[in-house]
Amino acid sequence: MARIAVVAGDGIGPEVVAEARKVIDAALPGVEATEYDLGAARYHRTGEVLPDSVLTELAGHDAILLGAVGDPTVPPGVLERGLLLKLRFSFDQYVNLRPSRLWPGVTSPLATVKPGEVDLVVVREGTEGLYAGAGGTLHRDTPAEVATEESLNTRHGVERVVRDAFARASRRERRKVTLVHKTNVLTHAGSLWARAFEAVAAEYPDVSTEYQHVDAAAMFLVTQPQRYDVVVTDNLFGDILTDIAAAVTGGIGLAASGSINPDGSYPSMFEPVHGSAPDIAGRGLADPVAAVLSAALLLDQLGHADAAARITAAVGAELAARTPGEAVRTAEVGDRIAAQVAA
Amino acid sequence: MARIAVVAGDGIGPEVVAEARKVIDAALPGVEATEYDLGAARYHRTGEVLPDSVLTELAGHDAILLGAVGDPTVPPGVLERGLLLKLRFSFDQYVNLRPSRLWPGVTSPLATVKPGEVDLVVVREGTEGLYAGAGGTLHRDTPAEVATEESLNTRHGVERVVRDAFARASRRERRKVTLVHKTNVLTHAGSLWARAFEAVAAEYPDVSTEYQHVDAAAMFLVTQPQRYDVVVTDNLFGDILTDIAAAVTGGIGLAASGSINPDGSYPSMFEPVHGSAPDIAGRGLADPVAAVLSAALLLDQLGHADAAARITAAVGAELAARTPGEAVRTAEVGDRIAAQVAA
Ligand SMILES: CC(C)[C@H](C(=O)O)[C@@H](O)C(=O)O
Ligand SMILES: CC(C)[C@H](C(=O)O)[C@@H](O)C(=O)O
Repeated sequence: MARIAVVAGDGIGPEVVAEARKVIDAALPGVEATEYDLGAARYHRTGEVLPDSVLTELAGHDAILLGAVGDPTVPPGVLERGLLLKLRFSFDQYVNLRPSRLWPGVTSPLATVKPGEVDLVVVREGTEGLYAGAGGTLHRDTPAEVATEESLNTRHGVERVVRDAFARASRRERRKVTLVHKTNVLTHAGSLWARAFEAVAAEYPDVSTEYQHVDAAAMFLVTQPQRYDVVVTDNLFGDILTDIAAAVTGGIGLAASGSINPDGSYPSMFEPVHGSAPDIAGRGLADPVAAVLSAALLLDQLGHADAAARITAAVGAELAARTPGEAVRTAEVGDRIAAQVAA
Repeated sequence: MARIAVVAGDGIGPEVVAEARKVIDAALPGVEATEYDLGAARYHRTGEVLPDSVLTELAGHDAILLGAVGDPTVPPGVLERGLLLKLRFSFDQYVNLRPSRLWPGVTSPLATVKPGEVDLVVVREGTEGLYAGAGGTLHRDTPAEVATEESLNTRHGVERVVRDAFARASRRERRKVTLVHKTNVLTHAGSLWARAFEAVAAEYPDVSTEYQHVDAAAMFLVTQPQRYDVVVTDNLFGDILTDIAAAVTGGIGLAASGSINPDGSYPSMFEPVHGSAPDIAGRGLADPVAAVLSAALLLDQLGHADAAARITAAVGAELAARTPGEAVRTAEVGDRIAAQVAA
């Protein structure tokens, strides 16, 4: 039976993770879960972000379920670079998977888009690009200060994530992959991405392809999100585009994500796209749907496609039954979804 | 009297520029315009992108009005790096100004946003960041290929554009500046931007401030564009965010921009955000409003605030009189706006 590590984290993290675990238990009884105390709270208490011993223990699990980490009192970058990105990079989670669907029952901020019309998935590269941490500062706090950030892109790293995107597209109905980059300005990285994309596309004659600059894609996600099926893009562009995709499909409260190591050499990690939302933490008001959908991605990745599909269907029923504008109660949502999954 | 250089360019460029010039003539008779043949057509004919002699001649003008350059047969980067970015960098156009308003008569794709509610301006840095061209490729076309792009940020370059944003905000009604970056991942550049922002903010106690990560800002531009007044951000983030802002306010067909050298040591350049749109070129179907609004920004920059305001008001009247979904005729739109300006 699967052994998962749970990092509930800060703010609403523990609240939504509790519901996700309820739902996992209902869908696949017997999953073993071990909790790890990481995040802002631990950092404040002990100064530790991610001890090596914990990293080693996490590596021994089949997957990681993460709630949300961070609060405004931690300096920017400490938990992001030290915990989230450290896990993505250490565990070589090169596929950052972010599906966006406009569910029946959910209102899009877009006037012209109807539920069921948007069903896309962004395959964001997770281990390279501007996230590599290759930057520096000279002459800090003087008029001569210069700060750099370097985007590192390897053929190895790009080709494997592009291949994952094509493999996913070939299993979907529309079988289309859109490459998003900025080849007209970032000519070196852009050319590498474009050539890798072309090479992999040749292996998938049944999958149609298109290319868009990132500024155009950001625009089309607002004006015609229906046009996308699978989108493959670099780490930073994916960060931005997936928040737009979440916004047009009802908000990051519903957006799930997986940081996946498809080779299985390290555990993959699943987490809602939303943050720790300190403003509503502790009040049972957070929507656990994003965490529950992340749990479904987790089970799917571990080979339990059936349990995952039942969770996804139950989420669909939960959302379809909602009244627009109605406040949710975290535990009640989890209870309803778990009951539906068990039924 | 002002002497401007006109680069009409390719595709719909010449069509929309012709209308912008009509409107300039109506608003401020006597502006001297010299045409420069640059863009895809010249590149194909002569192989030249921007001869040094032309760069020198352009430098002798008070401002540049540009239509659109490019067509799909030119390799990516040739005209962008060789012409557009070359001009922005050579003429130290460090303020890339992009206003977005939801005009009465224009339908936003957003269900909840009404005309008059969105009125923001993005002050995008124009001479640094990932646009610096500091990238390279090793082992090209081998499995060991690596490609880099470097974001270069100087205190000098950041502080001056942030100062421009605060100066603009202090002249606006809401007096608010939002800094957008990704300080939690791009910790070096992000820290430089955040510190420069804080230092300049201290000089403007009447201007309120906020900070957002770029992914959050992309989302809020879709869910709550009303919240923004002045947004200041780096070159690449600004490229993406201004296309989103254009999309939610009726599309890039209406979006104007200025690449401004506020010191006046070189000419500033004004151009619609849209491209050369080869698909509709030559048919008189392009909306010249973005080019006309760019001409208004140009006149404003040259000290003709009054003429600029009359153009802007005439555009407002034109848009308010439109029937949603109605096709436009390029020359008729220009004629109507010019007549209104002259009246
Ligand atoms: C918190 C941050 C490091 C992270 C990212 O930029 O990847 C987040 O925005 C996300 O999208 O998962
Ligand atoms: C054409 C391209 C170089 C340019 C940019 O990226 O700045 C365009 O997208 C813009 O926004 O003016």
